[in-house]
Amino acid sequence: MGEKYVYSNCLGVFVLDSSFKPIEKIDIKDVEQDFSKWLAEEKKVVEKYKKNELFYLGYKSSKLEGIKLTQDPKKIKGLINFLKQYKEQIRTKNMSLTKKRVKESVNEDSFIIQAIDNIEEVNKAANMLVKRLREWYELYLPEFSGSVDSHEKFVDLILKRNKEKLLQEINLEAENSMGADFSFRDVKPMMNLAEDIKKLYELRDKHEQYLDALMNDFCPNIQAVAGTLIAAKLIAHTGSVMGLAKLPSSTVQLLGAEKALFRHLKTGARPPKYGVIFQHPLISKVKKEDKGKAARVLADKITMAARVDAFKGKFIGDKLKQELEETFK
Amino acid sequence: MGEKYVYSNCLGVFVLDSSFKPIEKIDIKDVEQDFSKWLAEEKKVVEKYKKNELFYLGYKSSKLEGIKLTQDPKKIKGLINFLKQYKEQIRTKNMSLTKKRVKESVNEDSFIIQAIDNIEEVNKAANMLVKRLREWYELYLPEFSGSVDSHEKFVDLILKRNKEKLLQEINLEAENSMGADFSFRDVKPMMNLAEDIKKLYELRDKHEQYLDALMNDFCPNIQAVAGTLIAAKLIAHTGSVMGLAKLPSSTVQLLGAEKALFRHLKTGARPPKYGVIFQHPLISKVKKEDKGKAARVLADKITMAARVDAFKGKFIGDKLKQELEETFK
Repeated sequence: MGEKYVYSNCLGVFVLDSSFKPIEKIDIKDVEQDFSKWLAEEKKVVEKYKKNELFYLGYKSSKLEGIKLTQDPKKIKGLINFLKQYKEQIRTKNMSLTKKRVKESVNEDSFIIQAIDNIEEVNKAANMLVKRLREWYELYLPEFSGSVDSHEKFVDLILKRNKEKLLQEINLEAENSMGADFSFRDVKPMMNLAEDIKKLYELRDKHEQYLDALMNDFCPNIQAVAGTLIAAKLIAHTGSVMGLAKLPSSTVQLLGAEKALFRHLKTGARPPKYGVIFQHPLISKVKKEDKGKAARVLADKITMAARVDAFKGKFIGDKLKQELEETFK
Repeated sequence: MGEKYVYSNCLGVFVLDSSFKPIEKIDIKDVEQDFSKWLAEEKKVVEKYKKNELFYLGYKSSKLEGIKLTQDPKKIKGLINFLKQYKEQIRTKNMSLTKKRVKESVNEDSFIIQAIDNIEEVNKAANMLVKRLREWYELYLPEFSGSVDSHEKFVDLILKRNKEKLLQEINLEAENSMGADFSFRDVKPMMNLAEDIKKLYELRDKHEQYLDALMNDFCPNIQAVAGTLIAAKLIAHTGSVMGLAKLPSSTVQLLGAEKALFRHLKTGARPPKYGVIFQHPLISKVKKEDKGKAARVLADKITMAARVDAFKGKFIGDKLKQELEETFK
C-alpha cells in the first residue's frame, strides 16, 4: 500500500497517499469553537490505517500517539503542492477565525481600560482649557481668579454670577478692580469657553458613573477595596483583572511607580513605597511613618480582591475593606 | 535765604527750605492723564525762586533747565524724613495709578492674542480627545476609523449614523467586522464623548468668528493680506499690532521659525525660508523653488499692512492682496 500521510489544518483533516493524492478529507466545522474536535477527528482517521504505514506530516509534532512525524523536505514540498488548490479556502477560513478572535478579545477589561483612559484624558483637556480661561478672565476681573483654587468651582462661579456679584464676593469695588471693561462681544466667547469646559467636567463625571457600573458588575471586590478610580488604574496597568490577580501584592503596591523603582535599582536611591495606590484615602490618612505599612497592607487586600474577581468568586469586598480599616484605626 | 529744594512725585511739586520744612506744595490732580502738567508746574515754581539758591532733589536728573541736581545723601535723608508723613497718600495714589494703567493696558491686541491662543488650545484639546475616541471606537467598529482621515468628519459621521449604516458605507457585512458587540450601556459614554468633541470644534469655530470680527474692526489690512489666523499668530508673536508694524519685513518673514533660525546661526544649517506665514495659501500654492520668494513678497505686504493698521490708515488690504496675487500668477 505504501506510505500514507496525515495532515490537518483549519479546514479539516487530510489523508494523502505516497503521491500526495487525497485519500480522505474530513471537514471540521466550528473548529473555532472546540479545538478538541480536531484531535478527535485526527484520532478517528488514524485508527482506520496501519500505524506503521502512516506518517504525520507537518512542522509541529502531532499529539497522536504512535504516529511518527515526518519533516522530510521532499514530502513537505509535496504537501505544499497539494495544498495549493485550497489556498483561497484556507485564507478565508483563517481570516474569519482571526476576526472572530479579535472580536471576542473585547471584554469588560477593555471597557474598563477605555473608561479610565477617557476620564484621565477628558480631565486633562478640561484643565488645559481652564488655564486658558483663567488667563483670559484675568483681563476682565484679575482679582477673582486667585481667590478660587478649584478649577471646577472657578468655572461654575463665573458662569453663575456676573462681574458685579463676583466683585461683591471678594469685597472689591468695581472702581478698584484692575479689570478692563469688556463689551458683550468680548465677554461672550469667554463664557462660551467656560460653558464647554463645564460640559467636559460633566462628561468626566458621566464616564466615572459608567466606570462605577462596569466595575460593580465585573470586579466588585477590587472596587470595594481600592475604590473605582484606583482599581481601574491598576487594571489598566496590567491589562486585565486576570493580569492583576496573577501579580504578587508587592508588585501591585508599586504599580505606577516604575520610574522610581528603576531609579532605586540603578542608583540606589530610596525605593518607592507606593505607586497608583498612593491616592487611596487610607494612605493619605495615616501618619508619614505608617504610609509604607499602609501601602503594603492595602496592596495585600487588593491582590486578594483581584483574585476573587478574576475567578468569579463571591463578594467579600466589604469584609476586606473592614479588615483594612480596622488595621489602621 | 539759604538753599531751597524742589522735589516732585505723584502727589505734586514740593519746595522745601534748608531744614526741610515745606515752603510750598502744589497738588497735581489728574497727573495720570497728562504728565506734561507736572513739568509745567515744576517750571512755574522754579521761576519764583533764585536759580542759584534752588536745587533739584532726587535720584534722577530733572528736565528743568538751569537747576542743579543734588544727590547729597544727607539731603536725601532729610527729604525722606519729610516724606514720611505722605507715605500712605503716596501709596494710595501710586496704587490707583498702577491699577488704571493695568486696566488700560487691555486693548484689542489682548483680545486678539487671547482669541488665537484659545483657538489653538481648543483645537488641541479636541484633537487629543478624538484620538481617545478613535481608539475606543476601534473596539466597536475597527474598520471604520481608518477610512476617515479628518478628525472632524469622523466625529460627525459616528454621531449621525449607526453601526449598520457605517458598515454599509465601507461595504462591509456585519459578520465580517472585527468589531465587538457593545451593549447600549457601553455605546452611550462613547457617544457622549463624541458629542462633547463636536461641541469643542463648534467652540473653535465660534472663536474664529469672534477673531474675524475683532480683526475686521482693528486691523483689517493685515487680515486681508495674511488671513485671520496667520495675522493673529503674527500679532501674538510680537505682542501687538504696533510691535508687528515696527519690525522689518525680513523678521516678519521668519516669525515663528526662531528655532530654525538659531540653528542656522549656530551650526550653519540651511536658513529657514518662512515661519508662521508658511500656512498662507500663496506659499502652499507656488512651486518649491518659488516658495522663498513668495514668502519674502508676502512678508513685505504684511509689513505694509501692519503699518497702515498700526497708524489707523485707510483700508488698502484689497489692493495689497491683489498686487500679491498678480505677482504670482
